[in-house]
Amino acid sequence: MEIPVMDTKTEPTITAAVLLIGDEILSGRTKDLNLAYIAQFLAARGIDVREARVVPDVEAEIVAALNALRARYTYVFTTGGIGPTHDDITADAVARAFGVPISHHPEAVRLLQEHFREIGREANEARMRMARLPEGAEMIPNPVSRAPGFHIGNVFVLAGVPKIMQAMLDELAPKLEQGRLLHSRTVLAEVAEGDLATGLGTIQAAYPAVAIGSYPFERDGQYGANIVLRSRDVAQLDAAETAVRKLVEDLQARVPEPKAWT
Amino acid sequence: MEIPVMDTKTEPTITAAVLLIGDEILSGRTKDLNLAYIAQFLAARGIDVREARVVPDVEAEIVAALNALRARYTYVFTTGGIGPTHDDITADAVARAFGVPISHHPEAVRLLQEHFREIGREANEARMRMARLPEGAEMIPNPVSRAPGFHIGNVFVLAGVPKIMQAMLDELAPKLEQGRLLHSRTVLAEVAEGDLATGLGTIQAAYPAVAIGSYPFERDGQYGANIVLRSRDVAQLDAAETAVRKLVEDLQARVPEPKAWT
Repeated sequence: MEIPVMDTKTEPTITAAVLLIGDEILSGRTKDLNLAYIAQFLAARGIDVREARVVPDVEAEIVAALNALRARYTYVFTTGGIGPTHDDITADAVARAFGVPISHHPEAVRLLQEHFREIGREANEARMRMARLPEGAEMIPNPVSRAPGFHIGNVFVLAGVPKIMQAMLDELAPKLEQGRLLHSRTVLAEVAEGDLATGLGTIQAAYPAVAIGSYPFERDGQYGANIVLRSRDVAQLDAAETAVRKLVEDLQARVPEPKAWT
Repeated sequence: MEIPVMDTKTEPTITAAVLLIGDEILSGRTKDLNLAYIAQFLAARGIDVREARVVPDVEAEIVAALNALRARYTYVFTTGGIGPTHDDITADAVARAFGVPISHHPEAVRLLQEHFREIGREANEARMRMARLPEGAEMIPNPVSRAPGFHIGNVFVLAGVPKIMQAMLDELAPKLEQGRLLHSRTVLAEVAEGDLATGLGTIQAAYPAVAIGSYPFERDGQYGANIVLRSRDVAQLDAAETAVRKLVEDLQARVPEPKAWT
């Protein structure tokens, strides 16, 4: 169900895509935690994540995904591939996608040299690779481990380590345009989805400004569904929620308790 | 680092993409568990997941992603959107992507009518929507809740609920071509990535048949990296692993313990 836009002409929806970069996510070795975090972070600012992709550490794949996504959404957030090792190729891929050269950024060089001096580490070539930024990029500060992320055009390039990624999001937040909040309500239905579906479909048709999703669950042999309603129009959302609650109460009184999915 | 293919001519790599369908993943409300499970399941059969996408419950988005992925990879696995409610539109989107009509599949109808009779539920229109399959599709049995997944061309359409999705994978497994296993080794390095990087890059260059990734971690103030080596060529993998272990031992004896990322 597409999130309806109330007033496209006066207030366009602000959209985002997330690009997760790394073989370790595609191999199943690492479970991604960043997408859900970024989505919630942006939702709190009225920005809708509309698509996510996971690509391997292959430059051509990163470039193709970046170019597809940055053309289509207000913002693109990437995670992963900005460390000092040979498999960290995100900065090069972003430069390639934007068709600009990449080189050591003087401010990043100064910052990292000072940081490595402070912690008593050699500012060797590998470590200083982390100061390489595409031409025209601006640094995103990294309060955890100093090596910066960066921002070029509508693309924000963040670390893959969740703790560092999250700190970078806090740093870049002031640069983001804010949208109207997409409000959401959840109604717990101790009813099988198969009993809910017709009524729920009728309510959805009556409230096109509200996106209604049904998410079945099972907990300790108890089945049911969480009905999630989302809208930027609070009056419509209130009305749709009331209708869903009435439907659920009615069904809970009338149909047998669900003992199976659907 | 692209996973190198040993012998493309005689034995092409079997590849896959995963398409996660659902607003609830893009909103951050639900954390996806299916990608990592599918990736590990396929890896055990020598099949490499090369890309994943998350799209909302919007038909045009599902169709576009499906058509991009099915043209490019040996297999595509979708999860989500095959229940009885109005927001479950995956079967229709798959039919549209393949340019075929969709209708009630006689075998699925029989199966579901029998199931709902057994559990004492009305086989209403919404529940029977789950028997609708694109023309030419074959059912994938669902031992958990009966409503089938399906298989059309190189696309496998699975439930979003992890327990059901996992059971469907077991059912469809015999249909999959198997590839040569991609073996992997992990070397724990209690060394900062910035100290490892140069040596690791040299080893990567010496063993192009092995994909080497470095994944930094922090646990209780102890920093380090897991070096993951992957290859279909066990002799090369053994040799590269020996080289990485030697590098790590040498560095652990020589450089200070890491007290920070990189």
